Amino acid sequence: MRVGIDVGGTTVKIGFVDDYKIIYRLVVETKKDTLFDDVFKAVKCFIEEKNIKISEIGFGLPGHVSGTYIDKLPNIGIYDLDIKPIANKYFPNINIYTTNDANAAALGELLNDKDNVKSAYMITLGTGVGGGLVIDSKVVNGYHSNCGEIGHIYIDFNHNYQCTCGLKGCLETVASATGIVRLANDYYDQFKTSIDRNNMSAKTILDAAKKNDELGLFILNYVSESLGRAIATIELSVDVERIYIGGGVSDAGDILINKIKEYYKNYSHYAIKDLEITKAKLGNDAGMLGAAYLY
Amino acid sequence: MRVGIDVGGTTVKIGFVDDYKIIYRLVVETKKDTLFDDVFKAVKCFIEEKNIKISEIGFGLPGHVSGTYIDKLPNIGIYDLDIKPIANKYFPNINIYTTNDANAAALGELLNDKDNVKSAYMITLGTGVGGGLVIDSKVVNGYHSNCGEIGHIYIDFNHNYQCTCGLKGCLETVASATGIVRLANDYYDQFKTSIDRNNMSAKTILDAAKKNDELGLFILNYVSESLGRAIATIELSVDVERIYIGGGVSDAGDILINKIKEYYKNYSHYAIKDLEITKAKLGNDAGMLGAAYLY
Repeated sequence: MRVGIDVGGTTVKIGFVDDYKIIYRLVVETKKDTLFDDVFKAVKCFIEEKNIKISEIGFGLPGHVSGTYIDKLPNIGIYDLDIKPIANKYFPNINIYTTNDANAAALGELLNDKDNVKSAYMITLGTGVGGGLVIDSKVVNGYHSNCGEIGHIYIDFNHNYQCTCGLKGCLETVASATGIVRLANDYYDQFKTSIDRNNMSAKTILDAAKKNDELGLFILNYVSESLGRAIATIELSVDVERIYIGGGVSDAGDILINKIKEYYKNYSHYAIKDLEITKAKLGNDAGMLGAAYLY
Repeated sequence: MRVGIDVGGTTVKIGFVDDYKIIYRLVVETKKDTLFDDVFKAVKCFIEEKNIKISEIGFGLPGHVSGTYIDKLPNIGIYDLDIKPIANKYFPNINIYTTNDANAAALGELLNDKDNVKSAYMITLGTGVGGGLVIDSKVVNGYHSNCGEIGHIYIDFNHNYQCTCGLKGCLETVASATGIVRLANDYYDQFKTSIDRNNMSAKTILDAAKKNDELGLFILNYVSESLGRAIATIELSVDVERIYIGGGVSDAGDILINKIKEYYKNYSHYAIKDLEITKAKLGNDAGMLGAAYLY
């Protein structure tokens, strides 16, 4: 059995995985000072109790990692830490692998795909926009361990909104949950709308689009066009088999996915037009599943 | 010894490679109807004469290929051909590999790099703009066998020039040899220049830039900015270690490479800013060397 661990800001989700399925689950609270001790202890205790043999432990981590070395997990406050010595206290002979959470989720979605997909990009539309790349069923971490930072592709030359990263016009300035609300605020006075300006979220805006609200539809189109263009660019660079769209914003479902597909078809090069773009299916389980199969 | 073969429109270059060096070379004329027979015959004859053992034959081909199957080599006029049966007539037991010429060249440059580089994108600035991707020292052909078609990244939202591919504003509408001349024509009347309008080429325009010609400098900046932006986008998608710039336009040398670097620094995300961008070194040999190491 393999262990895949998805480390979040408040909880750590531990999955015991066999044949690409999560068989057992544990949840541990995320505590900055004892995180990895807590996790390894919990795993050790569980496998001894259940008399399970495990072959490897993989982590999907919210930050910048390389090998077993953690450069930074800014949301948790962990910096400059090698987890191998900690692992060795509990598991002297087991292989430990890490990647960032977006890459782990990308691999999880790919492994869960019934179509035996070998390469994919996962795009996560949350507070920001993130991504993970898998080629030949292996996560691509990248030379700077920053593969998948596609939220910062230059796409919005109309507004050139300032991004938190220091650049302007980044994909996430318009296609993240934050970006969607920003757009709706900017265009609020130009459309007939029933959206409550004082209580807007990506969800209320895209829900309004489903009811043909003019502002909602305008924002849906704007966001989908930006994503369609970005995917056309990504696909020229890597030519993967499938795109998974995940994250909270993707809960808008078919109306969003279909619009993105429509714009992708418009903007993509003819040689790569038949690309399947689909909603991610696993939600929070993707990270655990992917982390279990990092090697 | 390995055999790496670079198939061009007029000649086929055959390299016999050992320890990442081309030891012997043959050149065969490109004849549409007998191309692969001609090549395998020449290889067989040569190794028998020299008493050489070869372990594999790899091809870099100017078109769309997958496995040993050639979908199309439009410039040569070969379509829908499996080369395995032809190879078997001469070499019943040898492994045959193919990729497109841009990918072969990318791998060749990477293998020739003294810094033990493992991942790279090669960008070829010729009549069009092409590209090849290598990750973990292996060529990435892509799901549609079209990885590297980066000439069609949407970059020039200023002009939205029509591209031959059917899209508008593609990188190659401004950064190819053809694109550079188009730009110079469009801006000719706006700058003081000593460039002869009736005899313009990418070379004359970039040579003029070296002598501080105003039009030449404007075009140099424009092209470099487009490439800097495109590389910033590509790097977010794949996070490779190094970018090689090749093709005829790259003969402009340092003035072009340095300007591209300058714009890359401006437009790249902070996490991937320290990317090395360098002129490709091998010229025509890159394809042969890379083709010899496809597996």
